[in-house]
Amino acid sequence: MKRLVALAALALALPAWAEDEPVTPNSIVAAAPASDWVAIDPADLLVMDLAPDRDGNPRRVVIQLIPAPFSQGWVGNIRKLAAAHWWDGTSINRVQDNYVVQWGDVTEKKPLPDGLRVVPESEYLADLPNPGWRPNICVPNRLDCPESIEIKGPSNPTMRDAYAEAAGFHFGWPIGFAWRDAGKPGNLKLTPMQLTAWPTHCYGMVGVGRNVSPDTGTGAELYTVIGQAPRQLDRNIALVGRIIEGMDNLSSLPRGHGDLSFYTDEEADKRVPILSVRLGNEIADLPHFEYLSTESKSFAAYVHSRANRKDDFYIQPAGGVDICNVPVPIRRVKS
Amino acid sequence: MKRLVALAALALALPAWAEDEPVTPNSIVAAAPASDWVAIDPADLLVMDLAPDRDGNPRRVVIQLIPAPFSQGWVGNIRKLAAAHWWDGTSINRVQDNYVVQWGDVTEKKPLPDGLRVVPESEYLADLPNPGWRPNICVPNRLDCPESIEIKGPSNPTMRDAYAEAAGFHFGWPIGFAWRDAGKPGNLKLTPMQLTAWPTHCYGMVGVGRNVSPDTGTGAELYTVIGQAPRQLDRNIALVGRIIEGMDNLSSLPRGHGDLSFYTDEEADKRVPILSVRLGNEIADLPHFEYLSTESKSFAAYVHSRANRKDDFYIQPAGGVDICNVPVPIRRVKS
Repeated sequence: MKRLVALAALALALPAWAEDEPVTPNSIVAAAPASDWVAIDPADLLVMDLAPDRDGNPRRVVIQLIPAPFSQGWVGNIRKLAAAHWWDGTSINRVQDNYVVQWGDVTEKKPLPDGLRVVPESEYLADLPNPGWRPNICVPNRLDCPESIEIKGPSNPTMRDAYAEAAGFHFGWPIGFAWRDAGKPGNLKLTPMQLTAWPTHCYGMVGVGRNVSPDTGTGAELYTVIGQAPRQLDRNIALVGRIIEGMDNLSSLPRGHGDLSFYTDEEADKRVPILSVRLGNEIADLPHFEYLSTESKSFAAYVHSRANRKDDFYIQPAGGVDICNVPVPIRRVKS
Repeated sequence: MKRLVALAALALALPAWAEDEPVTPNSIVAAAPASDWVAIDPADLLVMDLAPDRDGNPRRVVIQLIPAPFSQGWVGNIRKLAAAHWWDGTSINRVQDNYVVQWGDVTEKKPLPDGLRVVPESEYLADLPNPGWRPNICVPNRLDCPESIEIKGPSNPTMRDAYAEAAGFHFGWPIGFAWRDAGKPGNLKLTPMQLTAWPTHCYGMVGVGRNVSPDTGTGAELYTVIGQAPRQLDRNIALVGRIIEGMDNLSSLPRGHGDLSFYTDEEADKRVPILSVRLGNEIADLPHFEYLSTESKSFAAYVHSRANRKDDFYIQPAGGVDICNVPVPIRRVKS
């Protein structure tokens, strides 16, 4: 059978970096030492069980909640909603092609649990105090900086980005950066600056539905991205996590035909019931998950390889890669 | 019901640019004069009818073939395959989440019609002789060029791009650019240069499956993009069109579980049969379609608006946009 990308599966099946095989993103991930993988705490997982499909197959979606310094006001609310079993009996209500799948209470009348925070818009952004992230601003050698502004972390490759001054990875998550209250880059001193950062709307990221500004949403209404990264939502809406397993249980749902692709009442039978949403530490048989440290050398090599594909299939390396085309590797581990 | 993007539908329902309504991408498209729309010749459409879904609903996919100077060797083959009704009785064979849906002859034994061209890899690229595309290379005012290299067409906004020296639009299609055989931009003279260009792997674009290099595929095996733009395939594989209607008939199909997410023989019942593929001028009742001229002022305003969303919902304009987050507006017209 003709293969669009013939080597991806092969690379997984062969010993990584065998002498006669090209280095690929997959071979790099397969060869990463155990010390480059970071365990995900089950308490940071949200497990959503949907009603079985028409053939009776179970449908589980596993979400990893984003850690500090990002979006913790909403993440705290989500932990309370899960503890209250608030989502049980709600449904998937919107599926818009090349955009989002959205779920929550379709009636909008279900009372929320007590104690949810009202989170201000300022929390769409977070400061990055990690001293490893002192930026190296590429101003003095500007003619050697064809790729716009470069910011380099200790071992983090960076990339040109259409939406942010720079984009990169921070402890497992894709983020955009800017200088807080900074003017033009040429005006900056070459000293450590305060960076502000935000998670980016990549495929599979999970965010908080809301009404118009200044509403920021509670976290009861959630969505995930199922198409080209809608990065215009960055800094305009809270991102609280990403789907690490079961994404196709959402992305392959039938699209809605109402306003904004919500399901209409006439197609109410398409609203998939949500049986339960629990924090991972409440689920007895949940597998353990790990992500590849974005601060590791393996990850840097992985990004470099994704940006410069060259093997029996790829004849022209791109020489670059979009932040949202670098999914952070996640794996199940035997417990 | 809470709306993730509350104004999109409203903007469509209201008179465009009403004094008290914000300008949005949708309002700009709605207000574009008839002269900014370009008719698509039915002879440049490929109409693929799939077997009905489980509820008996018909499933039609309409593909617009890409015009010269791009990929015409493969497009010519595709016209021959359609004329020979070659795809009738073949099937959808691969659905990989956040990547592609692929279709063709699953047996790989169906004889191809006579007269198909073997197209060389050099045709992944095309020269752009249009004098309107003399580039304005932003070298002398480099400190005023924070967005890397700028290339400006007559009315085409451009954007930072992670994969190409620049990205933009050419007569209705998203493309990447580079200078043919050029060195570093700083070495170039400020005179018209020969640009080389290629279509970009955006959501819904249609390409030609192939084996390893130097095979380039015939066009019999096709795929479309259903996730984040896999731009690493640019210049490595031929793009021959885009889906302009019925995309969700492909993007919402169940994902495969074999190598590269091909359907396994055990899940052969998921392979949706292709009833027929015809050129649009063979279909009696086909609606007419138009695209918004990418050389029009309306399109320039549309790109600017997508790059700078600001209204009751958007509080922080991005100040940029990715080429693949600017779908070229397509509409049905009453005939």
